[in-house]
Amino acid sequence: MQKKIETVFTPAIYDKFDDTDKIVVIVDILRATSTIVTAFENGISKIIPVSSIDKLNKYKNTDYLIAAENNGVKIDFADFGNSPDKFTREKIYNKTLVYSTTNGTATIQKPKNAYKIIIGAFLNINAIIDYIKKENKDCIILCAGWKSLFNIEDSLFAGSLAQSLLTNDNFYTICDSTKAAVDLWKVANEDLDNYVLKIAQKTRLAKLGLNEIIPYCFSTGISNKIPFYKNGTLII
Amino acid sequence: MQKKIETVFTPAIYDKFDDTDKIVVIVDILRATSTIVTAFENGISKIIPVSSIDKLNKYKNTDYLIAAENNGVKIDFADFGNSPDKFTREKIYNKTLVYSTTNGTATIQKPKNAYKIIIGAFLNINAIIDYIKKENKDCIILCAGWKSLFNIEDSLFAGSLAQSLLTNDNFYTICDSTKAAVDLWKVANEDLDNYVLKIAQKTRLAKLGLNEIIPYCFSTGISNKIPFYKNGTLII
Repeated sequence: MQKKIETVFTPAIYDKFDDTDKIVVIVDILRATSTIVTAFENGISKIIPVSSIDKLNKYKNTDYLIAAENNGVKIDFADFGNSPDKFTREKIYNKTLVYSTTNGTATIQKPKNAYKIIIGAFLNINAIIDYIKKENKDCIILCAGWKSLFNIEDSLFAGSLAQSLLTNDNFYTICDSTKAAVDLWKVANEDLDNYVLKIAQKTRLAKLGLNEIIPYCFSTGISNKIPFYKNGTLII
Repeated sequence: MQKKIETVFTPAIYDKFDDTDKIVVIVDILRATSTIVTAFENGISKIIPVSSIDKLNKYKNTDYLIAAENNGVKIDFADFGNSPDKFTREKIYNKTLVYSTTNGTATIQKPKNAYKIIIGAFLNINAIIDYIKKENKDCIILCAGWKSLFNIEDSLFAGSLAQSLLTNDNFYTICDSTKAAVDLWKVANEDLDNYVLKIAQKTRLAKLGLNEIIPYCFSTGISNKIPFYKNGTLII
């Protein structure tokens, strides 16, 4: 039987979907899921996502590394902010990281009955495609969006992933969001670097000063790691 | 000062937007707003939108016309279903219609502080464009979507409207949804009839048996009427 692909543009409407026995791919390209994939690629052993800076207090003065930003600035007692380029092998190999990301954590915690909750980024998209094909399950691509709103970068990932899966006859979609994401991806992919920068400059991304991070977060084939979420923790 | 364009893909996230002193364009292409525009074009004097069939009871056996469907079928005591082609001048001129449309009514009732709540469809899109330019206000394009989800047809309208406004230097957007809608519209508009039918056949629309209505609902230049919502009633 063919497997279904659905796309959710914002966690605010996730409750309208039935995730029973489906693979849910969590996407927050700028930057939570790109950062998580980078950290596992560089040898971190475990990540504990938390939904607010307040929840970091109990991890102060422990062996755990801490990543946290407040309005784009690393907080004083954290080891890292939220920029994937800082998570080098030297700093994180075999360590546990506690990661404060409001939007990302809230999104990761949304699925209730999923078969598996996995972390998707362009960095590991090829591995994700292979994994979903191999598991041959229905899947939901859950975009973290931006403050509960639709965002371009997560939607482009959804389009890219869905397009790849739909070239395989085992998969189909009747979901308008998926169809729109695929078409948006086709437009963007004609000249991805310029499209993304153009979007960034014209939208809220310009305010975040992410121009240097953006090309990296849209790179593919960087990692074959597929972090997954279980019992409050991300592992591979 | 330039005026801002925002797009809301589903009423479920409307509360994240500030509509103070903005024009809000309500969009439910298949079929509520297309039907409303058609009815005003054909001379109806007033429409009272209600959010459920239960609320129609008090209008039974009155002079009011009633339009209501249950799962796509006209209910027994209604004069009309939800298909715009039935609202002919002979039947509706100078009458008041009570219109049950779950999704449409809930959407129309969302704006709280708007300057004006207007009804948009492809049928009257040219008039809408002229109106917004003349009023020179910020505007929010509020898509009714489908059961709280993103849908293609409302998003295409948003893209078409936004693209037209953005050709005017008085308007700008920093909203990812608007940018995505414009790009989606560009893709679709290369061969609109086929795009819409292709989408329809591959998505939930196929189930609704709307193939005959779709080309009409994507026609432009049919009406220069701009219905607006005030005190629970639609008038022009």
